Amino acid sequence: MTPSIDRTRRPFVIEEATAVLSRTPSTLDALLRGLPESWTLAHEGGGTWSAFDVIGHLIHGEQVDWIPRAKIILTLGDARAFDRFDRLAQFTASAGRTLPDLLDDFATLRAANLRELASLDLTNADLDRPGRHPELGAVTLRQLLATWVTHDLDHIMQISRVLARQYSDAVGPWRAYLRIISGTQG
Amino acid sequence: MTPSIDRTRRPFVIEEATAVLSRTPSTLDALLRGLPESWTLAHEGGGTWSAFDVIGHLIHGEQVDWIPRAKIILTLGDARAFDRFDRLAQFTASAGRTLPDLLDDFATLRAANLRELASLDLTNADLDRPGRHPELGAVTLRQLLATWVTHDLDHIMQISRVLARQYSDAVGPWRAYLRIISGTQG
Repeated sequence: MTPSIDRTRRPFVIEEATAVLSRTPSTLDALLRGLPESWTLAHEGGGTWSAFDVIGHLIHGEQVDWIPRAKIILTLGDARAFDRFDRLAQFTASAGRTLPDLLDDFATLRAANLRELASLDLTNADLDRPGRHPELGAVTLRQLLATWVTHDLDHIMQISRVLARQYSDAVGPWRAYLRIISGTQG
Repeated sequence: MTPSIDRTRRPFVIEEATAVLSRTPSTLDALLRGLPESWTLAHEGGGTWSAFDVIGHLIHGEQVDWIPRAKIILTLGDARAFDRFDRLAQFTASAGRTLPDLLDDFATLRAANLRELASLDLTNADLDRPGRHPELGAVTLRQLLATWVTHDLDHIMQISRVLARQYSDAVGPWRAYLRIISGTQG
């Protein structure tokens, strides 16, 4: 008998993770480069983020979050908690910059970080090493890297939603069918 | 005084709509081509769709939904309801095909449909023309085209979510921060 394959949960496999991580810059580039600012600066009201804001946030993550935290785990384990991540850093760092410029930066930083990740040549024992999150507590390197992947996808989802919701009124009666507007999932 | 700009709702502008529509094939290509099947065939359980299923659905939309419905509106107005759309057509049509092949098809069909849309040279009066949806009733051509855009983004969001949720367990305690897994929006 063929064993049934669970298609709703994946164990973390580093080659599968980097397959997604390496595609995020080109995915966002294809979606956003050259798009009118009426789209790329749109948001969901209040303090919510535009696509422009999200790319700045992803850049900040490449600079201070994923690989720096991996190195803390590999050198200090859980003896030292990670630095806190500033979720609003991009509002200063991206000021006066253009979206194409930010997309270039993100692609360059991501490529360098994936080269660095590959150079670490992580073993399963490395992936099990413990770290300490300042709020969440005990985590592992494996969980950190899985979160890196999921965080990318979360922000691709967010950008898609922010863009789509600009047409919440324009779609008229179709609103009832569009989960991206109605807010339901499934 | 500079008038304040509403960044949470856009009126439908055809050049802005086609700016998104023309980017969807390359966005999905960048995200999915070459990705292991462990990702592209993953779904959310039960009758939910994988990325592979979604691309087949988008192909079927190019073939029988958007431009064919636009033509019904332009030729018959609301005198004739649109044909019903088969949301499960891809389960037959995509059988035995490969994802790269489907991505190629989607790109070719979308490019042809955008050329056809441009050739219609739609006026504002055309965009106001009425059509009749078999379930939703009275709609306009403008609403149909806005829905085409939003439908693309809905499925980019869906694919991102389906991929991310494969790591629902792998991310460990970070689950609490990842809205794509927890299901909350914002």
